[in-house]
Amino acid sequence: MKKVLIVSGHTDLKDSVANNTVLDELKRQFPEAKFSILSELYPDFRIDVAAEQQKLVEADVIVWQFPVFWYSLPSMLHRWVEEVCVHGFAHGSTGTALKGKKLIASFTTGATADWYSHEALGYTVDEILMSQIKATASLCQLDLQDYVYTGGVSYALRTDPEQLANIKALARRHADRLAAQLRELTA
Amino acid sequence: MKKVLIVSGHTDLKDSVANNTVLDELKRQFPEAKFSILSELYPDFRIDVAAEQQKLVEADVIVWQFPVFWYSLPSMLHRWVEEVCVHGFAHGSTGTALKGKKLIASFTTGATADWYSHEALGYTVDEILMSQIKATASLCQLDLQDYVYTGGVSYALRTDPEQLANIKALARRHADRLAAQLRELTA
Repeated sequence: MKKVLIVSGHTDLKDSVANNTVLDELKRQFPEAKFSILSELYPDFRIDVAAEQQKLVEADVIVWQFPVFWYSLPSMLHRWVEEVCVHGFAHGSTGTALKGKKLIASFTTGATADWYSHEALGYTVDEILMSQIKATASLCQLDLQDYVYTGGVSYALRTDPEQLANIKALARRHADRLAAQLRELTA
Repeated sequence: MKKVLIVSGHTDLKDSVANNTVLDELKRQFPEAKFSILSELYPDFRIDVAAEQQKLVEADVIVWQFPVFWYSLPSMLHRWVEEVCVHGFAHGSTGTALKGKKLIASFTTGATADWYSHEALGYTVDEILMSQIKATASLCQLDLQDYVYTGGVSYALRTDPEQLANIKALARRHADRLAAQLRELTA
């Protein structure tokens, strides 16, 4: 069976609702998957490059699970890419370790999905975020899959019990969509 | 006279050629400017939020000096934005500390400027990078200025003396363009 690696790129999970819910649900549905929870492993941003590269080498399907911070990857996930996906490993003439592996970007935003439009923000999610991820996947010869996205799950809303329940429900639905895609890819 | 704050977002300056050259030249031409060299101040990514916010409050013109890493801000600069430009300070109904301050994005890429095109990468610099910065500036009510950009200054070329000299010359020209813009803004 194909191996799944889920990289949690949230910089600080302790206040997260949506990302924690997605991760809990994935752990339940994919107990055999590997989880790399960056904020727990590397709170000081000192990433164990060899260990992370080894996890990537062993994986067939890689998921980046993260909240969008400032229209991009969170700094923790960005640091992981900088340190781990280096020349000679992930790109360059001899850097083919990730070639053909499948990558899913699975992300949430505090703002609603409608906000990511020409009318409101000036850009769609594809333009402002997926552009970076597509270019990154291309450089690393990763086989980029459809992304899984849920908007409107701001952790700032967590103090309202009704909103909190709504965020958790949206996050579980997000996890179900991601899980369905993972089952297809690993079948 | 208007006050200038230069934030160096390079994650690790010790191997940098272009960014170090730009910073050296700016220090020479703007001895009165404040410099926030993030990689020296916060090698562990633990940013002194109050200190950084105070520097921003005192500045009229803010420069982000950085190399483009993975089609985005380097993780260090991204972390600085996450930690410093928080709700209630830089955005939100009461977060107006940056309102009207001028921001210049001053950046370099290892790849040539030609690479950032629909034909080669699939995206221009405006699409893949400035989209994020424009959205960030807009949220913080920063008055975004023309960017200063130099491509083709990869540090990987530094071992060749001719290439090294070329990168330094390009970086000095970059600094001159930025300095001219700063002089106009602070006159």
